[in-house]
Amino acid sequence: MLEIKPSTKNWNTRGEDTAARLKDGSAYAKGKIVAAEDTVKLLEAVLRPGDKVNIEGDNQKQADFLAKQLCEVDPTKVHDLHMIQSTLSIPEHLDVFEKGIAHKLDFAYAGSQGKRLAQMVQNGGVELGAIHTYLEMYSRYFIDLVPRVSLVTADAADAEGNIYTGFSTEDTPAIVEATKFNQGIVIFQVNKIVDKLPRVDIPADWVDYVIESPTPYMLNPLFTRDPAKITNERILKAMMAIKGIYAEYGVKVLNHGVGFDTAAVELILPTFAENLGLRGKICTHWVLNPHPTLIPAIETGWAQAIYSFGSEVGMEEYIKARSDIFAIGPDGTMRSNRAFAQAAGHYAADMFIGSTMQIDRFGNSSTATKNNVAGFGGAPNMGCDAKGRRHVTEAWKKAGEEVANRYELMGDRNRGKKLVVQMITTVSEKGFPGFVEQLDAVALQKNANLDLEPIMIYSDDLTHIVSEVGIAYLHKCHNMEERMNAIRAVAGKTEVGKLEDPEITKKLRKEGIVKLPEDLGVNPAEATRDLLAAKNMKDLVDWSGGLYDPPAKFRNW
Amino acid sequence: MLEIKPSTKNWNTRGEDTAARLKDGSAYAKGKIVAAEDTVKLLEAVLRPGDKVNIEGDNQKQADFLAKQLCEVDPTKVHDLHMIQSTLSIPEHLDVFEKGIAHKLDFAYAGSQGKRLAQMVQNGGVELGAIHTYLEMYSRYFIDLVPRVSLVTADAADAEGNIYTGFSTEDTPAIVEATKFNQGIVIFQVNKIVDKLPRVDIPADWVDYVIESPTPYMLNPLFTRDPAKITNERILKAMMAIKGIYAEYGVKVLNHGVGFDTAAVELILPTFAENLGLRGKICTHWVLNPHPTLIPAIETGWAQAIYSFGSEVGMEEYIKARSDIFAIGPDGTMRSNRAFAQAAGHYAADMFIGSTMQIDRFGNSSTATKNNVAGFGGAPNMGCDAKGRRHVTEAWKKAGEEVANRYELMGDRNRGKKLVVQMITTVSEKGFPGFVEQLDAVALQKNANLDLEPIMIYSDDLTHIVSEVGIAYLHKCHNMEERMNAIRAVAGKTEVGKLEDPEITKKLRKEGIVKLPEDLGVNPAEATRDLLAAKNMKDLVDWSGGLYDPPAKFRNW
Repeated sequence: MLEIKPSTKNWNTRGEDTAARLKDGSAYAKGKIVAAEDTVKLLEAVLRPGDKVNIEGDNQKQADFLAKQLCEVDPTKVHDLHMIQSTLSIPEHLDVFEKGIAHKLDFAYAGSQGKRLAQMVQNGGVELGAIHTYLEMYSRYFIDLVPRVSLVTADAADAEGNIYTGFSTEDTPAIVEATKFNQGIVIFQVNKIVDKLPRVDIPADWVDYVIESPTPYMLNPLFTRDPAKITNERILKAMMAIKGIYAEYGVKVLNHGVGFDTAAVELILPTFAENLGLRGKICTHWVLNPHPTLIPAIETGWAQAIYSFGSEVGMEEYIKARSDIFAIGPDGTMRSNRAFAQAAGHYAADMFIGSTMQIDRFGNSSTATKNNVAGFGGAPNMGCDAKGRRHVTEAWKKAGEEVANRYELMGDRNRGKKLVVQMITTVSEKGFPGFVEQLDAVALQKNANLDLEPIMIYSDDLTHIVSEVGIAYLHKCHNMEERMNAIRAVAGKTEVGKLEDPEITKKLRKEGIVKLPEDLGVNPAEATRDLLAAKNMKDLVDWSGGLYDPPAKFRNW
Repeated sequence: MLEIKPSTKNWNTRGEDTAARLKDGSAYAKGKIVAAEDTVKLLEAVLRPGDKVNIEGDNQKQADFLAKQLCEVDPTKVHDLHMIQSTLSIPEHLDVFEKGIAHKLDFAYAGSQGKRLAQMVQNGGVELGAIHTYLEMYSRYFIDLVPRVSLVTADAADAEGNIYTGFSTEDTPAIVEATKFNQGIVIFQVNKIVDKLPRVDIPADWVDYVIESPTPYMLNPLFTRDPAKITNERILKAMMAIKGIYAEYGVKVLNHGVGFDTAAVELILPTFAENLGLRGKICTHWVLNPHPTLIPAIETGWAQAIYSFGSEVGMEEYIKARSDIFAIGPDGTMRSNRAFAQAAGHYAADMFIGSTMQIDRFGNSSTATKNNVAGFGGAPNMGCDAKGRRHVTEAWKKAGEEVANRYELMGDRNRGKKLVVQMITTVSEKGFPGFVEQLDAVALQKNANLDLEPIMIYSDDLTHIVSEVGIAYLHKCHNMEERMNAIRAVAGKTEVGKLEDPEITKKLRKEGIVKLPEDLGVNPAEATRDLLAAKNMKDLVDWSGGLYDPPAKFRNW
């Protein structure tokens, strides 16, 4: 028998510790405002060894001033930090480990820093927690990776500490909410402190310190693709995808991965797909960043609504002028909350389609290479079957009905399935094979001592592969053997494709499990750049009526 | 060739329409404040036929005043509304259809209104969109079920229209963000308009009108279970679950469904599980409403962190006094944002365990009955494998390694699996069988003309069934035939259980696919109420040091 003993212990240790830190920090603040030159002192005052620290670290915008300042703190005072951040984008995100200030890392995407990260993991400079998908990472902020101190960024603040996030909302609201409502400390760098904000996005009550940064936060145009670089081969894949997948399933709500393959799809909607009479029947609702290559489809009435994860440099005036399409706030600028966009990409979208670098013989795919711990950002969350989904759309239902091994999964019951599509080139221009016996991810796991091979999309989630050879309808396969044969049929001149048995492929084509261009009524000779609604950046600007303002590196006029 | 033609069309129709409505509504407002008696006139001014209207409609708290007022608008002016709301909890949520004001419905959970809803769907009074899981529903708010007008509720507002949501945050932030950032109109009922809020949760910029309600919003203690009603049989299941699942997999982050089965688990953590030396090894991090039956586990140091979907009536002072455990804001009250809690339940939790009413011979389960469109709330989102998850924990990894048909799913690669556990009684006290050949959900689909049978958890997501007979480890089964045999082995005296082959069961027990109490080292004779750390509501109050204040209906002292 357990005796009932009401507690006498202190249950407010976090709150008391926070109060003590804020007291130390207040020496450098007037109200909530801290001068930029006092940032290092502030950080030394409020950070403690071993803290979980969130540095924003978004996909696009960066709290780069705070990242630099964090590298300047005294490592005898502040050390062994556990960095929890969705993205590693700038050298300072790793410098902080080299300087002995941080030790452990949990993250989602490492883009340009992936190679250096792999080396640092191998030589023990970074203790790696896990690689996440974005929404998974945010989820853990509320549970077991709770930030003690968060270093975040926004467009503007007022003197009270109210925050305006502007076009690129991204991770900021999720980070701040998780931090502040677990009694953590929130420090903002803002581009400007102003008298009156265009709107308040985060109330001052949730903010501890605000610093006007000497330079505006870094923002990268990650989702801009120049139509001039789209090859005929990509246009062929786009045509096959539109006929064989978009139209076949009636896909209305979707996400596009970034890359030239899906940019080609976006640019032939107003031409090729228009001629097929598909406007209003496909591609009406998008979970997508404001891709400039989507402008012609918007202008010609294809896109009815777009909800974004972040913003895109140069698209601001265009977005403002298309307020029926984008998620616009009371001040006329976009709201782009990555947490909700990722939830929508998982649960509201009928299809995720994007490019990959490698697919193995089973249908697992990854963009990982042998010595680059890059992570996958949002792809695993969107490129997986949403098993909790219960609402029915035509696309989801049809894909579910086609699942050949359904009885093994759920007996005689029914369920839909998300369309998860990977576009790939069988052999790249540089000669790298897209189809491989074993993913580089397997070697990377060993090289970087990861807990799991970093696979972006697993075979049982993948419904279609589109290569320049044709489309494999993987969910229509009855078992792994048939699936492997379907993959071989579209794998071209790779080690996987060489195992193709033409007789089996013939049978799979009859069953609609493999479709080549002629099966889809697509003529490869018509796959030319003439189909692109915009052929270069200048065309995109013209489509926008001059509202789109591309960054200088995308201009040649 | 498509000609590039910059647009001349009006792209701000939503914004202009909103401005016109707000102008009409301003006749009844001083600033943003509207008198309660002008609510019907305000609604008639800002609503238009066919609008998508979100009425909050949470799991626990209700915008009940606004729901009542909406029933009073003139149906010749306001009609054919499309109601989008997570929960139908009060008669007014359906009255609005009977009065010809609303016509279409999308929702997630209908609890007490489910039977009436089924009838109204059958006789054409309600056109049913879809039944969602909560996070799926919120996701669509941002994409294709965007609220034009939202009627929401909170604790308090100030004169400018800043909002304080208090303990029961629930759906409010997701609804308001989706509405306001698509140029919709946000109307709050609040319990009090005050001079100075304890904290601002939603900035006034996001709010159009505020009404001080004549009565505080309704809030139901849905998650309170009286320990006095826990039977020995439930205690036996809890003991088996703790040894055979919680301890077996080392489950640290988890969600409990509501019910006496999981209440029994919560109440024997400080006794049975303590004696097994499991404290700190299991059940450290919870995604869970503040269940009163969790108080003894909190007091004895079992729970390290709890993040909640909503609040629970009577727990307020206890939560405030345990600020190291709960997600507390700057004012000392809890933040309980259902959108983030559901994301965490999907992605951060290693296990979902809850009770169900029916499991079919394949392992699909549902709480649906033949004439009750109740929906499932959050269960499908938490009770499914999180296919996008990439971080590794001991529990997730071990479950994944045990998946017997792994090769068919992903070839020679590896992945973890979420533990999804259903607790069930083979035959209820009233004689209803828990195991059935066919779920009532199948009949309900026909009766209510649904697009899909409302299945709560699908067989391929379910890893374990715990009945009073024993535990079936379904993911260890190689195929559907073996899975059906494992289910029969724990199905007792039901039509499913009668098909059990004792020889096969013996084999399954040898392979660890079925475990009976003796296989688990659990002695049924020890499964008595003596193990409960609290035997009644009074014990819970005592454990809390008098801080927990149960609603009157739970008090008998």
